[in-house]
Amino acid sequence: MDFLTVLGLVAGTLTTIAFLPQMYKTWQSKSAKDVSFVMLITFMSGLFLWFIYGIYLQALPIILSNGVCLFFNMIILWLKIKYR
Amino acid sequence: MDFLTVLGLVAGTLTTIAFLPQMYKTWQSKSAKDVSFVMLITFMSGLFLWFIYGIYLQALPIILSNGVCLFFNMIILWLKIKYR
Repeated sequence: MDFLTVLGLVAGTLTTIAFLPQMYKTWQSKSAKDVSFVMLITFMSGLFLWFIYGIYLQALPIILSNGVCLFFNMIILWLKIKYR
Repeated sequence: MDFLTVLGLVAGTLTTIAFLPQMYKTWQSKSAKDVSFVMLITFMSGLFLWFIYGIYLQALPIILSNGVCLFFNMIILWLKIKYR
């Protein structure tokens, strides 16, 4: 695995796991009123397009991180709707 | 400009402007207690590495979107610290 792929995987791991503390915080506080709904929808649309971009570019870090990140944000959105 | 670059720029624009409503919401409500501090720090570290990854890959959409996104998240972090 070349340096570029490793760099991308580390970058992708960071921007992806970043949403784990947000998920935990939302689940624990049962509140996400300070988390913008418009942000979540716009962000998830963008993540989906990055996912397609990664497939075209055949760049594993882009495919993996955006796929998993999209999944995490779906959970945050679901928690936000659940606890509103 | 080829299709791939356009796709990447649209994806990057979405994941970047997604943070504008979050910035506005935080500024308006003067509260970001539901926004995880650990998320912001981890996310910003990842964005910085994506930025470097984009430079290596010479992929303009990756460089631009992560650079601007990093700047927006710095403002959200500053607002969170200011309003805690």
